[in-house]
Amino acid sequence: MKISLSKLTTKGKALFLAYDQGLEHGPTDFDDKNVDPLYILDIAKKGKYDGIIFQKGIAEKYNKEIRASKVPLIVKLNGKTSLFKGEPISRQLCTVEEAIKLGAKAVGYTIYIGSDYEDEMLQEFEGIQREAHKKGLPVLAWIYPRGKSLKKSGKTEDELMEYSARTGLEVGADIIKIQYVGKEKDLKWAVKSAGRAKVVVAGGFKEGEKELLAKVKEIINSGCIGLAIGRNVWQHKNPLEITKKIKEIIWGGKK
Amino acid sequence: MKISLSKLTTKGKALFLAYDQGLEHGPTDFDDKNVDPLYILDIAKKGKYDGIIFQKGIAEKYNKEIRASKVPLIVKLNGKTSLFKGEPISRQLCTVEEAIKLGAKAVGYTIYIGSDYEDEMLQEFEGIQREAHKKGLPVLAWIYPRGKSLKKSGKTEDELMEYSARTGLEVGADIIKIQYVGKEKDLKWAVKSAGRAKVVVAGGFKEGEKELLAKVKEIINSGCIGLAIGRNVWQHKNPLEITKKIKEIIWGGKK
Amino acid sequence: MKISLSKLTTKGKALFLAYDQGLEHGPTDFDDKNVDPLYILDIAKKGKYDGIIFQKGIAEKYNKEIRASKVPLIVKLNGKTSLFKGEPISRQLCTVEEAIKLGAKAVGYTIYIGSDYEDEMLQEFEGIQREAHKKGLPVLAWIYPRGKSLKKSGKTEDELMEYSARTGLEVGADIIKIQYVGKEKDLKWAVKSAGRAKVVVAGGFKEGEKELLAKVKEIINSGCIGLAIGRNVWQHKNPLEITKKIKEIIWGGKK
Amino acid sequence: MKISLSKLTTKGKALFLAYDQGLEHGPTDFDDKNVDPLYILDIAKKGKYDGIIFQKGIAEKYNKEIRASKVPLIVKLNGKTSLFKGEPISRQLCTVEEAIKLGAKAVGYTIYIGSDYEDEMLQEFEGIQREAHKKGLPVLAWIYPRGKSLKKSGKTEDELMEYSARTGLEVGADIIKIQYVGKEKDLKWAVKSAGRAKVVVAGGFKEGEKELLAKVKEIINSGCIGLAIGRNVWQHKNPLEITKKIKEIIWGGKK
Amino acid sequence: MKISLSKLTTKGKALFLAYDQGLEHGPTDFDDKNVDPLYILDIAKKGKYDGIIFQKGIAEKYNKEIRASKVPLIVKLNGKTSLFKGEPISRQLCTVEEAIKLGAKAVGYTIYIGSDYEDEMLQEFEGIQREAHKKGLPVLAWIYPRGKSLKKSGKTEDELMEYSARTGLEVGADIIKIQYVGKEKDLKWAVKSAGRAKVVVAGGFKEGEKELLAKVKEIINSGCIGLAIGRNVWQHKNPLEITKKIKEIIWGGKK
Repeated sequence: MKISLSKLTTKGKALFLAYDQGLEHGPTDFDDKNVDPLYILDIAKKGKYDGIIFQKGIAEKYNKEIRASKVPLIVKLNGKTSLFKGEPISRQLCTVEEAIKLGAKAVGYTIYIGSDYEDEMLQEFEGIQREAHKKGLPVLAWIYPRGKSLKKSGKTEDELMEYSARTGLEVGADIIKIQYVGKEKDLKWAVKSAGRAKVVVAGGFKEGEKELLAKVKEIINSGCIGLAIGRNVWQHKNPLEITKKIKEIIWGGKK
Repeated sequence: MKISLSKLTTKGKALFLAYDQGLEHGPTDFDDKNVDPLYILDIAKKGKYDGIIFQKGIAEKYNKEIRASKVPLIVKLNGKTSLFKGEPISRQLCTVEEAIKLGAKAVGYTIYIGSDYEDEMLQEFEGIQREAHKKGLPVLAWIYPRGKSLKKSGKTEDELMEYSARTGLEVGADIIKIQYVGKEKDLKWAVKSAGRAKVVVAGGFKEGEKELLAKVKEIINSGCIGLAIGRNVWQHKNPLEITKKIKEIIWGGKK
Repeated sequence: MKISLSKLTTKGKALFLAYDQGLEHGPTDFDDKNVDPLYILDIAKKGKYDGIIFQKGIAEKYNKEIRASKVPLIVKLNGKTSLFKGEPISRQLCTVEEAIKLGAKAVGYTIYIGSDYEDEMLQEFEGIQREAHKKGLPVLAWIYPRGKSLKKSGKTEDELMEYSARTGLEVGADIIKIQYVGKEKDLKWAVKSAGRAKVVVAGGFKEGEKELLAKVKEIINSGCIGLAIGRNVWQHKNPLEITKKIKEIIWGGKK
Repeated sequence: MKISLSKLTTKGKALFLAYDQGLEHGPTDFDDKNVDPLYILDIAKKGKYDGIIFQKGIAEKYNKEIRASKVPLIVKLNGKTSLFKGEPISRQLCTVEEAIKLGAKAVGYTIYIGSDYEDEMLQEFEGIQREAHKKGLPVLAWIYPRGKSLKKSGKTEDELMEYSARTGLEVGADIIKIQYVGKEKDLKWAVKSAGRAKVVVAGGFKEGEKELLAKVKEIINSGCIGLAIGRNVWQHKNPLEITKKIKEIIWGGKK
Repeated sequence: MKISLSKLTTKGKALFLAYDQGLEHGPTDFDDKNVDPLYILDIAKKGKYDGIIFQKGIAEKYNKEIRASKVPLIVKLNGKTSLFKGEPISRQLCTVEEAIKLGAKAVGYTIYIGSDYEDEMLQEFEGIQREAHKKGLPVLAWIYPRGKSLKKSGKTEDELMEYSARTGLEVGADIIKIQYVGKEKDLKWAVKSAGRAKVVVAGGFKEGEKELLAKVKEIINSGCIGLAIGRNVWQHKNPLEITKKIKEIIWGGKK
């Protein structure tokens, strides 16, 4: 079965709102407003995002509102706290079946390539990818190079980014989320390496608005289909305003 | 299915009696009276507790009396002794199905975030949460930061408490049991971070009665739905008297 | 279902003959006579023991004779050699189903609390306990504190014995086999800590007959239901004679 | 059921085009043309290769074109990045069932003998081999000696090559892919050691055309059924030309 | 069901031809003739061996000839290369079901007692033994003391041999294959320790013919039912001649 991305994209482009930071970083990322999943959902709804990324717990407890919002739900299937400081390992914390019950239009999973546990995450991803595709559900793979082996690999940062993108294609991801390092030409090569798999860039970086928008332009120029953005939006004093500016770059104001 | 907490709460508040210390600490916590599960059950019954927390073994061997008492049974599904001194790992020692057969109204599971085995406990919890929710059973998560990584995390004690609360929401707990450190405003923020998941505070601390009651007041003021208390009650010379005082703070004497 | 101990006890007391030393210690424990399982079975039969403890291999190869003897068969479900010197781990080497086919009236399993692998044995025990109880079969747990963590635990030897007894109750054993250290009052407290789970003492100690019988008296006085004895009997020049003396203490000569 | 190699061989010989380097080495192996799986597929089609080796992701996303090409698809079932620098472990990332759905005519799996994880790969291979043979599907085993133990083994490089070939026979591979080291007589002995299992040589080496073709001659002389070649072909400025020359050596120009 | 050894023995004695060295040691054990499984099978057939020991791969690829030979097939279910130099672990590489399909009359499995992985091999053996006995298939256990713990065990070499034999009985093997060290009286004690399980000695030793035959005599005198011999036969310039001499000792020339 061919996996359609039509529910997750607008004219082939996509802007996702990421909100898995509560588990990944803890509530230190939040303030009194954005600590509330409903505040985030409201941004996604009003900003017409192509997807909102939640862990199972939030997808479950705020399910009624999520469904009502019509924002496509992307359930993040694995996760970990930032407290453990050994080689990164992030295990499956929600099944594909459960995600579907929660109304998910796609599922996501993080693979830390280079980690001592790379093999376990690659294998766990395999099961998820297989089951999701059986049900026609697209799979997003967050692919980040991590761990103490990286130094020994002799790879530069942009080579690691490109390797991440290619890994996503090889293991069967439909959309690959990578972190943007290096220059536009490097990201272009990463996109090319990903072949028919689509690439989105993870926000992550915390910068001034001008720098952010410049980066968005590079991301789109490089052939990525869009971004999965989080803190740059929901920590912004006016999330819808910044959303609008980002969307104008992605869709040329036509969305 | 929406998970109802109605069997575990009274007017939205809760006071649970915890008695899993036999496995977690050994009988050094006990005296001639409180070594007996029936003594504890009697306190829970007369004190009209909203739940009593037992391991499978006790839930099984004293099942007739537990059912007769009408105190809601909460089966603790994992546990460990205090003897092993490596990174904490507490594995599932009772299935959800078994707990239901024993008459459980909820199940509990401890996750030591930050431990080298955080990933295994998060994943084991996932299976329990999923199965319990399938049966409409609420899930309590004890979430405690532990392990040698914590020092490297750079987090303060109250940030760790808040992180614990948020983790509970993200992974799908219905009630999150945390240890209270820091000040009332920190606990308030933890409660806020937990969103629609409810927070109870673990007793744990051993203090004078005055200090205990002052703490209970802070706990309730901060938005927690109550406490899961153990030694402060059943090691007390008059457990029902101290129970009454705690309940007056929680319910304003109206229960 | 309530688990009945009637097939394993006589007037509420029990004397079991243990013969799992072949795997646990190797044949250095044996001589030309007691190396033969039939010699042991004969002692159990003539001495009217309440149970005989074998590993699967012996229970299978001598099954006809075991059944004919009418001595209740207790299959030990896990085991290890004494050769590996790392943290102790003893894994399941026979299923409950297999034990039942062999005619077992109960199953046994060793848990080394404090070991680096405590969690794995506790969890494996859980599956056994659950399955056995489903079939109405009593479960014996050998609970021994072991491993390099014990020193750091700050517990005294008798506290460890008491902790062992309590662990057995918490995890759902019907009969708990512990090693007797310390004084009679300590063993009494261990028995009390075990609640409705019954306690038997493992022989293990190698002493003169007088000391042995004195110890048996203490064991019975402390509330234990009896002993699981091995070498003190089958290495004895006259096993039935010493059996008789032990039984007189346990049952006051009335059995 | 006897496993037929007829779909993977021409007159008993075989030339496979390997393209799993995207995962194994990253896109640094690629240029603007060969980064594209369709470019590779085109070489395989026009060069009439006996098989093309892809990971699941590529086999899925380019499935229509692969089927249309009529090139026999060999799905590589395990893989890893080159980033992790510990003892090599490459886990199953695609099931046999999935490979069959994708139209695979054979499956492949890498075993790193000598690695700390040799046992896990040998065992995972067992499941794959069993399932594939049940469906009549041939199994290729890449067998490479790796890991820090090799130095201690006292084996020479060619002994390790021969050991690889024999391991393939013993574990039930139909075609064994080894790396050619040493001299023709050593490869001959490896082929002999492989018995009824067939041997192909992995390209891997990067050399001048003359040296490459000389090596191909040795490979065929030694009794191997052919090669699984990758970079030497698709990094070549004229892949079909070099393909033709290789085939003339393998089939004497008669294919 | 009682497990019959009738298909594997002649008048209660047995001589097996072992040929799992290809995986265990690599082809350095072989020459141009004995590298070929058919050469070995021919020895077994003409020498009327009671069984021939192969790994799955050979049992599969030479199955027609094996069946035609009428030599009872013993499939070795686990194995490893000699390349990995850590604590020995040999995992299951063929299922009992698969072995039966291949026409096996028995299955074999190696347990390295004393190894860090002793527990995993004991447990894997359990599953094999259970399934094989369900189908009425005899189980051979190769039991060898190994690993760095042995030195700390304080056991002598012959005590370790005796322990191996006893372990086989306790875990349910039907035939135990041990390595002969020490003197005849030690082997006698090992045989006695094995009870109703039968003992065969592994060849392994490489000696002159005279010493070999002297050893065979001791082995038979000690009560072993025979040998599982390999290199001493198939590396011999006249395998049938040496076979004949060995058989004369085992059966007194009457077979």
